[in-house]
Amino acid sequence: MIKNKVIETMMEHRSIREYKDETPSDEEIDSIIKASQQAPFVSQLYSVILSRNLEEHPFHAPLLFTICADFHKFEKIMEKRGWEPVTNDLSILFFAIQDACYMAQNMLTAGESLGIGSCFLGMAPYKAKKLKEKYNLPDKVFPVVQLAMGYPNEDPPPRPRYPRDYVLFEGEYPELTDEMIERAMEDMDEGYLKQDYYRRLDAKISIQDDKEDEYTYDDYSWTEHISRKWGQWYRDKQQLLDQLKECGFDITEK
Amino acid sequence: MIKNKVIETMMEHRSIREYKDETPSDEEIDSIIKASQQAPFVSQLYSVILSRNLEEHPFHAPLLFTICADFHKFEKIMEKRGWEPVTNDLSILFFAIQDACYMAQNMLTAGESLGIGSCFLGMAPYKAKKLKEKYNLPDKVFPVVQLAMGYPNEDPPPRPRYPRDYVLFEGEYPELTDEMIERAMEDMDEGYLKQDYYRRLDAKISIQDDKEDEYTYDDYSWTEHISRKWGQWYRDKQQLLDQLKECGFDITEK
Repeated sequence: MIKNKVIETMMEHRSIREYKDETPSDEEIDSIIKASQQAPFVSQLYSVILSRNLEEHPFHAPLLFTICADFHKFEKIMEKRGWEPVTNDLSILFFAIQDACYMAQNMLTAGESLGIGSCFLGMAPYKAKKLKEKYNLPDKVFPVVQLAMGYPNEDPPPRPRYPRDYVLFEGEYPELTDEMIERAMEDMDEGYLKQDYYRRLDAKISIQDDKEDEYTYDDYSWTEHISRKWGQWYRDKQQLLDQLKECGFDITEK
Repeated sequence: MIKNKVIETMMEHRSIREYKDETPSDEEIDSIIKASQQAPFVSQLYSVILSRNLEEHPFHAPLLFTICADFHKFEKIMEKRGWEPVTNDLSILFFAIQDACYMAQNMLTAGESLGIGSCFLGMAPYKAKKLKEKYNLPDKVFPVVQLAMGYPNEDPPPRPRYPRDYVLFEGEYPELTDEMIERAMEDMDEGYLKQDYYRRLDAKISIQDDKEDEYTYDDYSWTEHISRKWGQWYRDKQQLLDQLKECGFDITEK
């Protein structure tokens, strides 16, 4: 494994959920934004809203960034150029979400290089209508992810990840063997149990039907946790379609 | 502007379209993957396919990574855990595309820290069916972006970006004034013209209807180029819906 400052910064990433009150300086924020802006965007179809209302933020983080897919500001440019947008909303979203994510990932990495910790908040798409009202988002702007940021007041370890052979496939996608699947599960589950992660966060997801929950924090770990999400949550796509529509994206129209 | 190795690496990013033949070492590839894997994923809903068929690759890059949204491998885990996936395909995609993008952005940054250049290829979603056949992708795996990689055989400058006030909004999304829009356009257009970017790539997008094209490479620049995309391309969402469906994602079903 080759090491350098960039690779070490990435390797040391962990989400921070406890922050010092001190706010990162404007120069730090500027540097994070400016560096992140150099990502290889499809066409800069993103915007970043910064809130400093610490009291309202998750974990009372001093900074909360809402990173949005944004077609609005390019529409304004097209207007000046005498062009009418014709691309369908679904395609615009697919490209704009990418741009928002490249920005968000870069902001996290740039922040960590300055000793500033952060936590991604992935529920933004499901709170889009609320965020639109809160931040006065125009149509064609859709919140993709939020990023809490500040100086860490805790020092957790990096979290487990899949083994390499469950992530990188050479030449083609292989048949996933029982052995591969089980080793991936073991790495994740043993890794999180060793860190006592779910107990510390008291983060168990409850079982929604009458099945008894046989797990305690002694054996409840990552694969069970995530299975309870995709095995119980977001059955109906209407919820997300409604949020998109509120933000001016209609992906169901003819 | 605060500088450090991470921020400098990001600031120096530029896409590379000319590569040396020499292939990055396995240790370099490993380091890139391992560092990038530490991104703050929703739930590791991504996979990376590596091709070394230089002759087939865009720009004859020695390495071509296809970064996919991948729900297949977590389905395998759920099966072992006795859970059935119920989450709708649209929601899964929204989360999985994020995971793929975080991975892709990290790979690019990690690569550049090792002197390895790259170029994002954003058309993967529109070639999904072909890529599925080529790489034997199972259902519920959707190519989001491809990343050509290798040692640069050219040394282009970083490309222009929007001014900060067109990207970062404090407190709320502002009314975009004519001044803001025009300055953003100027920064982008003048910046690209100064680099003679579109002429060098011979990358002008033609006008599809009978309107005369009044632009030459002396004044054709970024805002006109991108306007010609979103003003002419992808009118119908069916094209993308078909590609998604071929990959096992039906976002139109009830």
